Amino acid sequence: MKGAVLFAPHDVRYVEREDPKIVEPTDVILRLSATCVCGSDLWPYRGISPVRRPTPMGHEYVGVVEDVGTSVRTVKKGQFVVGSFFASDDTCPICQAGYQSRCVNAVPMGSLGAQAPYLRVPLADGTLVATPELPPASMIPSLLAASDVLGTGWFAADAAEAGPGKTVVVVGDGAVGLLGVLAAKQMRAERIVLMSRNPDRQQLGREFGATDIVTERGDEGVARIKEMTNGLGAHSVIEAVGTQESMMQALRSTRPGGHLGFVGVAHGVALPGLELFQAEVHLLGGPAPVRRYLPELVDLIWSGKIDPGEVFDLTLPLDQVAEGYKAMDERRAIKTLLAPDGKVAA
Amino acid sequence: MKGAVLFAPHDVRYVEREDPKIVEPTDVILRLSATCVCGSDLWPYRGISPVRRPTPMGHEYVGVVEDVGTSVRTVKKGQFVVGSFFASDDTCPICQAGYQSRCVNAVPMGSLGAQAPYLRVPLADGTLVATPELPPASMIPSLLAASDVLGTGWFAADAAEAGPGKTVVVVGDGAVGLLGVLAAKQMRAERIVLMSRNPDRQQLGREFGATDIVTERGDEGVARIKEMTNGLGAHSVIEAVGTQESMMQALRSTRPGGHLGFVGVAHGVALPGLELFQAEVHLLGGPAPVRRYLPELVDLIWSGKIDPGEVFDLTLPLDQVAEGYKAMDERRAIKTLLAPDGKVAA
Repeated sequence: MKGAVLFAPHDVRYVEREDPKIVEPTDVILRLSATCVCGSDLWPYRGISPVRRPTPMGHEYVGVVEDVGTSVRTVKKGQFVVGSFFASDDTCPICQAGYQSRCVNAVPMGSLGAQAPYLRVPLADGTLVATPELPPASMIPSLLAASDVLGTGWFAADAAEAGPGKTVVVVGDGAVGLLGVLAAKQMRAERIVLMSRNPDRQQLGREFGATDIVTERGDEGVARIKEMTNGLGAHSVIEAVGTQESMMQALRSTRPGGHLGFVGVAHGVALPGLELFQAEVHLLGGPAPVRRYLPELVDLIWSGKIDPGEVFDLTLPLDQVAEGYKAMDERRAIKTLLAPDGKVAA
Repeated sequence: MKGAVLFAPHDVRYVEREDPKIVEPTDVILRLSATCVCGSDLWPYRGISPVRRPTPMGHEYVGVVEDVGTSVRTVKKGQFVVGSFFASDDTCPICQAGYQSRCVNAVPMGSLGAQAPYLRVPLADGTLVATPELPPASMIPSLLAASDVLGTGWFAADAAEAGPGKTVVVVGDGAVGLLGVLAAKQMRAERIVLMSRNPDRQQLGREFGATDIVTERGDEGVARIKEMTNGLGAHSVIEAVGTQESMMQALRSTRPGGHLGFVGVAHGVALPGLELFQAEVHLLGGPAPVRRYLPELVDLIWSGKIDPGEVFDLTLPLDQVAEGYKAMDERRAIKTLLAPDGKVAA
């Protein structure tokens, strides 16, 4: 088969790769209905994370089970499934505590390259959640979003303890930040403030539930949040960028005793210890344990209660993956969906 | 009156200071039954925190109400009271959420100098908790411990979510770390690991409830904790030092999804963002909101269930405060109690 491979910064190509095969008896092979480009894929694409060798790309996926290892019990050939960007056994103590992205046997799906027509998924029983039946094409983008970007925004909102009576601030207007807004809305936050300067993203943020938009950044942004919260700061803050600036903006926007959920992959970030000490803020972040939330998220999508697939504002055939990266890099697209068959279908 | 004043590193003197007087109608004046030297007092004493001018010292106190401002309602002249090292109104939204050390009207008691025979306490109604009656002299050290060092260890254990079935690791064998052990025991942690090389402190740690002692530090210490926890790390970790080394040791000893409570005042600490991201650990720390816990702590002490005053292994008359600092600086004493009248009594 062919698949997306990053050769060097700004050089992603759709080239021949080995067909995935069952390696372990706990594996399945999926025929992907859709995959996509993640904001985190832009770090190596931009050369900020080093690209040391040609690297298969992609870690978000939904599709139909094509082949099943001999010990797989919970998913069957022909089922439509959603998985997380980390394969996990869902049985170890870390998984049982709800942190499947840090499973003792975790496999990062990025290492397997999901921007391709077929994908091997290890630890299938622990990783995949099947839909009740094959979904209509219109629902596939939302199910794909659950694989990472929705699950990540959801974890951030959960880590930030978004909920009734709370003011939630979202730092970052990428797909994760926008779906953090959607998650906070589902968690019935009272006020949801999206920090964004981009009119299209502001608009989608409002559709997802943002009650306020703040265009200021840095110290000015923090000052605006303080103004809006009687000088206290927000109860709950979602950080969905991963830079020093965004982390400090998020930390300083959180009131003492409040909660900061950070999910932007940190690049060049160092948190000053004394400021962290004095802030007296709960922090939780990292790679989202999407698997914990998948059954609930699939159910919300299946029942039509949420439509996170709206974050995909560009759909391309998989062989045009290079343009998909370019559009996101240039911020022409929020998120690019890639259709292996040229069109999205189960 | 006289009181302790730090003039320069290693130069603390018992010298004439102005008598404290009621300034605000919400103030009270206490005649102190006991005060003490805090581990955090050693930062300026050692010159690690700058000493820019002669500075009255001390922020831990218990005593008898001597004078009462006109609007004080909940404490009366003659009562024995315990207060936190931050005065707080206990009514603002931050206090109501349980973070009184970050009260919008907080006054750091260190700025008023509690190593003295008399002390002005602002916001008395919000700050002070009275005992049912005058305590016996033998109970005063424990009540004094509640003012900071016990309350801080308690907050750390609470932030670390110590509890049944949990393995709790304590980094730091000073008074706060040792009382973190006591707190974890009260919270019914299953296993409590004190990281310490000092036989006396190990002994007191065992009396307070430590089930295991680890003498290794740094990477070796982390490796020992991993060995003891099936490679996972501890559920709950208390950091009670405040250095880069201790923070990293604590972070790396915590399992993914676990909780790290940090209460050592951070000095020269910078947390690497990517490691924090990948650790996927809950963090909460800062100046302990002791006031939240005071009623419970006073009750536990009053009923004889805990005896945190054991951390005081040196008692001196207040006029020998300089020796009190020196003994702690040289680690000859865990914690020095200072008796304004030369003996401890209500």
